Amino acid sequence: MLAFLGGTGAEGRGLALRLARAGQGAVIGSREPARAEAAAAGLQPLAAGGRITGADNAQAAAQGEVVFLAVPYEAQRVLLEQVGHLLAGKVVVDVIAPMRFERGRGASAVEVVAGSAAQEAQQLLPSAQVVAAFQNVSAEELLRADHTMEGDVIVCSDHRPAKERVMALVRLIPDLRPVDGGGLANAKYVEQITPLLVNINRIYKVHAGIKVVGL
Amino acid sequence: MLAFLGGTGAEGRGLALRLARAGQGAVIGSREPARAEAAAAGLQPLAAGGRITGADNAQAAAQGEVVFLAVPYEAQRVLLEQVGHLLAGKVVVDVIAPMRFERGRGASAVEVVAGSAAQEAQQLLPSAQVVAAFQNVSAEELLRADHTMEGDVIVCSDHRPAKERVMALVRLIPDLRPVDGGGLANAKYVEQITPLLVNINRIYKVHAGIKVVGL
Repeated sequence: MLAFLGGTGAEGRGLALRLARAGQGAVIGSREPARAEAAAAGLQPLAAGGRITGADNAQAAAQGEVVFLAVPYEAQRVLLEQVGHLLAGKVVVDVIAPMRFERGRGASAVEVVAGSAAQEAQQLLPSAQVVAAFQNVSAEELLRADHTMEGDVIVCSDHRPAKERVMALVRLIPDLRPVDGGGLANAKYVEQITPLLVNINRIYKVHAGIKVVGL
Repeated sequence: MLAFLGGTGAEGRGLALRLARAGQGAVIGSREPARAEAAAAGLQPLAAGGRITGADNAQAAAQGEVVFLAVPYEAQRVLLEQVGHLLAGKVVVDVIAPMRFERGRGASAVEVVAGSAAQEAQQLLPSAQVVAAFQNVSAEELLRADHTMEGDVIVCSDHRPAKERVMALVRLIPDLRPVDGGGLANAKYVEQITPLLVNINRIYKVHAGIKVVGL
């Protein structure tokens, strides 16, 4: 079972949808279980037979073998203080890119003392295996269920089996390609690609992604 | 005339070579003019009839209409204090990605108080038009003169005509594509892609580049 905490947001819903379509059981978590259930019910008709359910974040965290963190960065610490004890020993996928938006300046990265949201999560969850991934993937494109995705998912972790498990999940979403991005210290650079892409999106009126060429 | 300050390094030589091959006059600058002349002489046979000369950094800065900064980040400030008065009103292309290397940890980005090397250059050169570009392009691939390049050059500047001029220079190198990366504040994210690529290069034993997909 894959759990998506804060999964009522666009990125969490998009990933839950795509991975459910690939045959993975998915549970969407929210602070409010009714919202999670509504999000799951909204996605279910698009899930091609896959099963998507909703629950509160703690129930979702308890059910998930692999648990995605898909809250806004500002909510990550409080979430992990609440449900961290349920994540010991699990693979935790941090998809968060800390960003702010300012009128006239567009998107910019929020400084994180730990270096990145993913490194902060690993500090808060010392017995979990944190993997940073999916930060640069357009939620809008994920939610177009029949749309073939383009680009790479750069996957960073200090835990090799966990990284490989997440790279295998990437391969379930056509045609995303996982790229081994090395250790979790590199998550900082990947997270910061997201505000760059958001600003490029505004210039070109697109939902851009990133690809590593020359591999 | 295009000038490449600190152009005896691999990135400066690679860009001088490729742009000379496209018909642009190129002068390589160095602290030691003899080294610049030697670098130019070494590239000249590969330049397909283009002209590459060498000079000291000040002479090169004076000659260039468009001036590339290709020194290591640690040398940028001293260089600009020396030659900045020669760059007023000019297009200055900052290709620098501030990085350090540590045994066992690979490459990491160096913090820059101004945000990025390019923003620091713009602060030091208030009457120049600074453009950030080419930070993610592999010097090794540029130096393989017949090799067709792959990927994008994300170009950031607060000066639109200067940005467009540099985007036109990118198009002279087959098959690089310029991508408008918005204002100079975004240069930070582009510069930080370079240590990520260096680390990916080490994992995959390649010279990777980056592409923005979905444009």
